[in-house]
Amino acid sequence: MTGRFRTATTVREVGEGRFDAEVHDGWDIGGNANGGYLLAIAGRAMAEAVGRPPLTITAHYLRPVPAGPVTVDVVPIRVGRRLATATATMRAGDEPLLQILGSFGDQAPGGPSIEGEPPVELPPFDECAAPPGPTEGALPALMANLAVRLRPGDEGFRLGRPSGRAEVAGWFALADEEPVDAIGLLLASDAFPPPVFNTDLPVAWVPTIELTVHVRGTPAPGPLRCSFRSRFVHDGLLDAEGEIWDSTGTLVCQSRQLALVPRPPD
Amino acid sequence: MTGRFRTATTVREVGEGRFDAEVHDGWDIGGNANGGYLLAIAGRAMAEAVGRPPLTITAHYLRPVPAGPVTVDVVPIRVGRRLATATATMRAGDEPLLQILGSFGDQAPGGPSIEGEPPVELPPFDECAAPPGPTEGALPALMANLAVRLRPGDEGFRLGRPSGRAEVAGWFALADEEPVDAIGLLLASDAFPPPVFNTDLPVAWVPTIELTVHVRGTPAPGPLRCSFRSRFVHDGLLDAEGEIWDSTGTLVCQSRQLALVPRPPD
Repeated sequence: MTGRFRTATTVREVGEGRFDAEVHDGWDIGGNANGGYLLAIAGRAMAEAVGRPPLTITAHYLRPVPAGPVTVDVVPIRVGRRLATATATMRAGDEPLLQILGSFGDQAPGGPSIEGEPPVELPPFDECAAPPGPTEGALPALMANLAVRLRPGDEGFRLGRPSGRAEVAGWFALADEEPVDAIGLLLASDAFPPPVFNTDLPVAWVPTIELTVHVRGTPAPGPLRCSFRSRFVHDGLLDAEGEIWDSTGTLVCQSRQLALVPRPPD
Repeated sequence: MTGRFRTATTVREVGEGRFDAEVHDGWDIGGNANGGYLLAIAGRAMAEAVGRPPLTITAHYLRPVPAGPVTVDVVPIRVGRRLATATATMRAGDEPLLQILGSFGDQAPGGPSIEGEPPVELPPFDECAAPPGPTEGALPALMANLAVRLRPGDEGFRLGRPSGRAEVAGWFALADEEPVDAIGLLLASDAFPPPVFNTDLPVAWVPTIELTVHVRGTPAPGPLRCSFRSRFVHDGLLDAEGEIWDSTGTLVCQSRQLALVPRPPD
């Protein structure tokens, strides 16, 4: 059985470096497709074009993207022994939606390691906060396709009780238990509520300008531990950075984005 | 008087989106141009092409770059009211050296702020460690053009006494006191010794695969406070991230890179 995420990110090569894809309903927030989901579609096209998995990939978001057909044009820049670098443009008709730059290749080429930061501590999956049911309303459509569980306290913003810290941590899996691979990590990197929701800032949405994801490994089976935070929110812009660890405690992904903080309505 | 950095990053438009530039001697490490310096050349060409300063820019490094003539071809993808997004390729002859993706526009568009992390604490500029003199050898050529001062302890790796923490902090200015603008921040983002030099890892060089810089403001005059660290070094790859604050304590830049850790010789 093909998982829902795999289906919703299917790309089909229709010409030299030209891929057709479909932005599906159900991966959106208020009708606009999630940025990580869009990056997954583009990343899959680029990975297929160069025949290697993503290692580091950056997307610049040019417009909100509703459901519908899109094309992804991939241009390889350099294909070397170790890494292949390519750019891509996702378009609806002639209109550019995303511009992407990535390098693809082995995420664990082997070499020295030093002990890094430990995985974020979380209560067991079932003790973390599930999204509210449909009667509680206001749940982004995206969340029905995901099994996201928030660290107790980090869901406070949903109830008007933000934690006061610009942090969100929790578990990530796909709702239908499709395994999360390197392409799935691109989705996971942008699938949590913005950490700034847990502050007192009057912010309802934070449109991403730029998202960079470093894929540091292929996850072992099981839900992923995720931790995201905003460290610098000023003058109408904010960062959000995060890490994702697999069930063996291995860091598999780092992400960082720059986003706009729209002015609150007067 | 035109500063040395301004001169060494001069670009000249010679056709629609095509710029000529010269990678100068003296901005290298062992004959290969510094990655931040190369990004500054490309970023200047892109900023001139779209008529706005850099806000977020990512470069993928394809080959080591010796001194010599290069071209930068800039392709605008979307020019909007608020942001302009463009890609660029730096080449020597037909050979691609760097591929770049950036969005350009106002770094302080105005909007809500929250208090972020404070600037890194440093002793006064003159109490931090100057680079060794020429008789002490092994100083990258680059350092003669910079006024970099390391936090006491962080220079230990130069004397065979690494601090044991994958961190490097200190002051940054240009040696000839040219003010550091948004383009200069691209250089500063990659101008410090790799933080991993302060660990016991047998590493002599860490070639950058990808570098992303968010320019968060235009620096006020005076030396910049800089702090860089590697948090995750495993399986032959490492991250290095950092922040730069100006003399008023304002965060003006965030950077992050993914780099290779070459295997030590057998």
